[in-house]
Amino acid sequence: MKQIERRSDCPISLSLDIFGDKWTLLILRDFIFFNNRHFNELVTVEKISTNILADRLNRLLENDIVKKEVDRNNKSSYLYSLTEKGIDLIPIVIEIYKWGANNIDGNNANSEFKNEVNSNFNKVTSEIVDRIKTTHNNGNRCTSL
Amino acid sequence: MKQIERRSDCPISLSLDIFGDKWTLLILRDFIFFNNRHFNELVTVEKISTNILADRLNRLLENDIVKKEVDRNNKSSYLYSLTEKGIDLIPIVIEIYKWGANNIDGNNANSEFKNEVNSNFNKVTSEIVDRIKTTHNNGNRCTSL
Repeated sequence: MKQIERRSDCPISLSLDIFGDKWTLLILRDFIFFNNRHFNELVTVEKISTNILADRLNRLLENDIVKKEVDRNNKSSYLYSLTEKGIDLIPIVIEIYKWGANNIDGNNANSEFKNEVNSNFNKVTSEIVDRIKTTHNNGNRCTSL
Repeated sequence: MKQIERRSDCPISLSLDIFGDKWTLLILRDFIFFNNRHFNELVTVEKISTNILADRLNRLLENDIVKKEVDRNNKSSYLYSLTEKGIDLIPIVIEIYKWGANNIDGNNANSEFKNEVNSNFNKVTSEIVDRIKTTHNNGNRCTSL
């Protein structure tokens, strides 16, 4: 595995060494909320360039946050899935959603989902985690969210 | 206020436009866990350069996440504090701590605090939020953590 240079052994610093950038958690947002798990779907992430996307996916693979398998529904294509370590990142992504939805003017959060996250954070997170565990473990694509 | 270019109106993307980098949340870690709130204390953040520190503090000020006031205990110095919007970021920082402590080999998490975060996340977060609200609102420095 390619080694990332550690700034310290602090758990927060080590985490940010892996996903402390503008793109990585956005790619995970697409996994979690939109079920975009093929490279050619992920290029729709906010004008990401293909080389940045490839770099970030590789970093996620190297750090065992995502895995990559031949798509059983299209053997010429690869399907990315979250590992257990990746699924553990879901609360971080939802906390960031919550912060942005509550604190940034002009954001496009769905008001129903925002209210649900604000009032039932643990329930919402746990439901999303359960759905991802099911859909990412069997290699099939969940076609309706 | 200096405008950050928006990649989209998604709350996650907008949030990462502000703090999606290797340093910003580490600076906030120092505010939250170590009560380091002066520039000359924050330069101890993992070998951060003074120009990056100044840039990130300015971005936090521009986005109303921190405020800067003359330190009443040392009038030649400025004291940074978290605003309400900054205090709202605390759960994100603690989720990142939790993920790193549980998932990255060789991290130096204190095992007692890690267990407490794993078993009583909401309680730990709420206690930290309450402490920061008290210490950052009155402009005084909390000398013991």
